[in-house]
Amino acid sequence: MKRIEGGVTAPKGFSAAGIYAGIKKGEKKDMAMVYSQTPCRAAGVFTTNVVKAAPVKWDFQVVHESAYAQAVVVNSGVANACTGEEGFRHCASTAEAAGEALGLPSEAVLVASTGVIGAKLPMDIIKSGVGTLAKALGDGREDGARAAEAIMTTDTKPKEVAVETVIGGKTVTVAGMCKGSGMIHPNMATMLCFVMSDVSISKELLQKALSDDVVDTFNMISVDGDTSTNDSVLLLANGMAENVEITEENEDYQAFCQALHVVMEELSKKIAGDGEGATCLFEVKVFGAPTKEEARVLAKSVVTSSLTKAAIYGHDANWGRILCALGYSGVKFDPEQVDIWFESKAGKLKIVENGVSTGYSEEEATKILSEPEVTAIADIKAGKEAAVAWGCDLTYDYVKINADYRS
Amino acid sequence: MKRIEGGVTAPKGFSAAGIYAGIKKGEKKDMAMVYSQTPCRAAGVFTTNVVKAAPVKWDFQVVHESAYAQAVVVNSGVANACTGEEGFRHCASTAEAAGEALGLPSEAVLVASTGVIGAKLPMDIIKSGVGTLAKALGDGREDGARAAEAIMTTDTKPKEVAVETVIGGKTVTVAGMCKGSGMIHPNMATMLCFVMSDVSISKELLQKALSDDVVDTFNMISVDGDTSTNDSVLLLANGMAENVEITEENEDYQAFCQALHVVMEELSKKIAGDGEGATCLFEVKVFGAPTKEEARVLAKSVVTSSLTKAAIYGHDANWGRILCALGYSGVKFDPEQVDIWFESKAGKLKIVENGVSTGYSEEEATKILSEPEVTAIADIKAGKEAAVAWGCDLTYDYVKINADYRS
Repeated sequence: MKRIEGGVTAPKGFSAAGIYAGIKKGEKKDMAMVYSQTPCRAAGVFTTNVVKAAPVKWDFQVVHESAYAQAVVVNSGVANACTGEEGFRHCASTAEAAGEALGLPSEAVLVASTGVIGAKLPMDIIKSGVGTLAKALGDGREDGARAAEAIMTTDTKPKEVAVETVIGGKTVTVAGMCKGSGMIHPNMATMLCFVMSDVSISKELLQKALSDDVVDTFNMISVDGDTSTNDSVLLLANGMAENVEITEENEDYQAFCQALHVVMEELSKKIAGDGEGATCLFEVKVFGAPTKEEARVLAKSVVTSSLTKAAIYGHDANWGRILCALGYSGVKFDPEQVDIWFESKAGKLKIVENGVSTGYSEEEATKILSEPEVTAIADIKAGKEAAVAWGCDLTYDYVKINADYRS
Repeated sequence: MKRIEGGVTAPKGFSAAGIYAGIKKGEKKDMAMVYSQTPCRAAGVFTTNVVKAAPVKWDFQVVHESAYAQAVVVNSGVANACTGEEGFRHCASTAEAAGEALGLPSEAVLVASTGVIGAKLPMDIIKSGVGTLAKALGDGREDGARAAEAIMTTDTKPKEVAVETVIGGKTVTVAGMCKGSGMIHPNMATMLCFVMSDVSISKELLQKALSDDVVDTFNMISVDGDTSTNDSVLLLANGMAENVEITEENEDYQAFCQALHVVMEELSKKIAGDGEGATCLFEVKVFGAPTKEEARVLAKSVVTSSLTKAAIYGHDANWGRILCALGYSGVKFDPEQVDIWFESKAGKLKIVENGVSTGYSEEEATKILSEPEVTAIADIKAGKEAAVAWGCDLTYDYVKINADYRS
């Protein structure tokens, strides 16, 4: 397996486009399309929020009931959430317009929206945008890059990852783009991720690979602990790599899962590190937990702690907050057994041993915590399971971005 | 029942003192003592964090194993948390020193600490402070006020409440002081509350009254979602009101519970409104929930949402974040049934009806949200239960207070 340049147009048969259609102010790109030459099997994981935006309901239907999917239309600027039945009709109209432009049935078109909640999609702009996108589709690296740019909201940079691997003697590519930072100016936090592959795989295993991987990737990141109404991860596979179809959990399946994991983990970290107002990527590794699930709960409790996040912003080795966040996670453990380290490119330092300070050098700790990527490591000494979570620091800018009026 | 002036010295037989002993920098008061002329029945509710500070362990023992309690010693500046066995020995030594000074067995002395985690108590200062406090005890209003001041950390104001009620023909007083804002310069978030009463009541019912009330008061506040290692609520009753001892859940018990509730709710709101960096008290009322517990979960989910808290700081009627926070609370409900209002001294405005915007005036909403106390109200229309939670807005100052170096 190797990392390659590019995004959603890297796998065979996928083309993309990103344009300014007129939804956002300021002529920033606001609509994207991804299209596959051939029908794709589709898998999806969606927000667990009981308040689900209309596109989430539409896509759930496409993933679980349509024979295949072949295109994705995304808009930024308006989330089409809390818009009632009209919102759902707007999804259907968007899919219909895309279907007409691309010669597809509307039920083969996935849609996604991110932006202000409660506002209605400007359907004239959306429909004309869909037509423009269909004509602009291209399979170059720059086409994928434009799509990645068009789905951004408060993101400070586009997020793309691609890898190549060999499955059954054939080169298989897995590539994705995502967006997510916090909220759009300044509304719902939304995380959207689109992964494309030319692998040949059964629909059932495609969904299993995605569902299993999300647990250790997108479900382990947190910018502010708010789960959006629009969160979606979509995975499309068009089979054009011509590997023997993966229909069981064999070596080929493992190879695909590994490639998918690299893409998903990298995209997750890009979202965490680009959290609203963030100055650093904050990684939390927990090991020595009794179960995998408890390891995850412990790591997420630390990565979401406001007190810990503010300390990381201040480059402050405030281990008490870390121990405290482990303590209120709900997992039972003996705090007088816990060891804690801080690590970054500047070094690694043991801060706590068996629940008390090691008498470490504050100066050295601050140096370690002044890097753009910092890791806190906790050994619970209660078992053999480990987990990693990713987040970011809590800064003045986070408050600024989110306190501003929507106008 | 009526509100009266004063704090912990208001009930009969209680005296108090607050002094600068030398733990904190800058000569701010840092030690307090409360003493009862006669032995008290004691009840306590403590942090659920598995990381429990040494004073929490000591007080749990006093509340549940000692024949009676008669004094409380509190220090601010050092939390005596994550200090291992030595920390517990320091609690015992503090109680012994206080016992000697007051002529009490050490097991009748409760201790509490709030401040930097991981640091050891300066026992020389603590012991000499205990001696000074014992001599300084007085039952005037100013003595209680000095104690309330001495337990402050990042609090911007002392917090005292007192009420008087009549039970069985006798005047009974319930009064308390508390501290809690976020973290101390800048370490553990700690909430300490001390309520004193001259009521005569069985130990069992005293604990029941406290445990039941905490659920709707101190457990419904959140400044930053971090549950401290030191959180403690202590309730002492010395019986000097000479009411017929309350030994069953009769009218007298109800009257006491009502007085206790007023004190506890008021103290809770004082902590929430004085949250670190806060510019306003943010109240969330949920009604129409299927169960009381679900109502509590929904209200707390909104009051702890960083996105909602930042919007409140910006006086932004961002109802989408409220609906979103209700949605990820874990409680099942139909978002297309939900109504939402904002309310303050400036008025009351319906923002959402059946899950969609009412088309309200943003200007009017901003006016309502510009008051020092604002309320969001949500009707879930799924049952008859209600709950109220209290918090505060998320501001630049919260980040500033918590990102600074500890030095």
